[in-house]
Amino acid sequence: MTTLMSPDELEAALRQVGAERYHNRHPFHHRMRDGRCTRDEIAAWALNRYYYQSQIPIKDATIIARMDDPALRREWRRRIIDHDGNSDADRDGGIARWLALTDAMGFTREEVTSTRLILPATRFAVDAYVNFCAKRSLLEAIASSLTELFSPEIIGERTAGMLAHYDFITSDTLSYFTERPPQAQRDSDFTLAYVREHARTPEHQHAIIAALEFKTGVLWAQLDALWHAYVEGHVPPGAWKPDP
Amino acid sequence: MTTLMSPDELEAALRQVGAERYHNRHPFHHRMRDGRCTRDEIAAWALNRYYYQSQIPIKDATIIARMDDPALRREWRRRIIDHDGNSDADRDGGIARWLALTDAMGFTREEVTSTRLILPATRFAVDAYVNFCAKRSLLEAIASSLTELFSPEIIGERTAGMLAHYDFITSDTLSYFTERPPQAQRDSDFTLAYVREHARTPEHQHAIIAALEFKTGVLWAQLDALWHAYVEGHVPPGAWKPDP
Repeated sequence: MTTLMSPDELEAALRQVGAERYHNRHPFHHRMRDGRCTRDEIAAWALNRYYYQSQIPIKDATIIARMDDPALRREWRRRIIDHDGNSDADRDGGIARWLALTDAMGFTREEVTSTRLILPATRFAVDAYVNFCAKRSLLEAIASSLTELFSPEIIGERTAGMLAHYDFITSDTLSYFTERPPQAQRDSDFTLAYVREHARTPEHQHAIIAALEFKTGVLWAQLDALWHAYVEGHVPPGAWKPDP
Repeated sequence: MTTLMSPDELEAALRQVGAERYHNRHPFHHRMRDGRCTRDEIAAWALNRYYYQSQIPIKDATIIARMDDPALRREWRRRIIDHDGNSDADRDGGIARWLALTDAMGFTREEVTSTRLILPATRFAVDAYVNFCAKRSLLEAIASSLTELFSPEIIGERTAGMLAHYDFITSDTLSYFTERPPQAQRDSDFTLAYVREHARTPEHQHAIIAALEFKTGVLWAQLDALWHAYVEGHVPPGAWKPDP
């Protein structure tokens, strides 16, 4: 990548990464959407993905801590509020809504929030994301959130599929996903405009595309690990084992 | 874990972690040892594990950078020399010997050393190890290398099995493993004595056991990812794909 792309060409290249690598193409997503998952597979997904949810505000605070511009910090902090909630009541926000799902799957709050039962591969992938946002350039850290461009569609598929196919799933337990698409839309609009404007060299553009590829790998690896452990039945030592 | 164990009890607890969680119990190891791996599976293993090998001296330098005692630094730096080599010739040392294996499997040096073809899950697991050694206490960082207690046995099994079963494997291509067991024995003798002496509270002892559990998870997750991608055939986007 030695020539400078136009902003539209850059956006097209980013959308191509999503078309080829986003986890809406993963067999675990198709299985969940189509009603082929067991209850234990959904439980394992909810339990593990809690760790991802729990680290998102930490990732975003890491990014904010690297921003010199108050306006940019104000924009980005909405993400923390979305996840941690507006009030002091610990009842709203994405993390609280995620816990409604793990509650419904029968986990205690301690089992979930201690994260002691998750797959090591989940932890490694999620921590890699937080570390990426701490160590790479601010532009790359911001660009890594561009998977949100593709999330409204996967959330729509997932929610409709899960409500249609699983009697243990209700719209209450999926409230995380009801709230999320407009937030993701707003955030990805901002991020896309930001990277279109700030990627002023071929090297910047290459780094932005690589950051999005990296992030799709973080998401894909989590579903690979769930598939291996809970569809194929190879649960690694120490992780949650469903009752036989 | 609220009571202080004796050093012998601590050592027994550590050996129990190995008995339950070390990757000599992983199906991929059994498959490789017993001659059931395809050539491509061995190639994928060599390609991915190169990244682990390449980060070991970085992990050890990170640990040395946290040591105040010159004698301790002198002890630990032998590990860097073992991996990076004694001379300026770039021909000895564990990493150079590992490249003899990836050469034999048909990869170019660029394909291997760029690490652009490895599984994202390999990168996440290995980076988690380096980060653990940078961020946790020095005692935990040191303790995480205790998997070396168990490595001479797995290396013996692996080497004998591979030489017996695969005609593309020779003692030259496995020279990494010929050199490694006495180094691992020496290093783990030191580390075991160190943790026996320095774990003076139940909290220290608990942290040491948890560090070893963490490290076994790093090794196990790498074989899980190889199995999922190359035994089951679910290669994630961007990673090396064998010729059909």
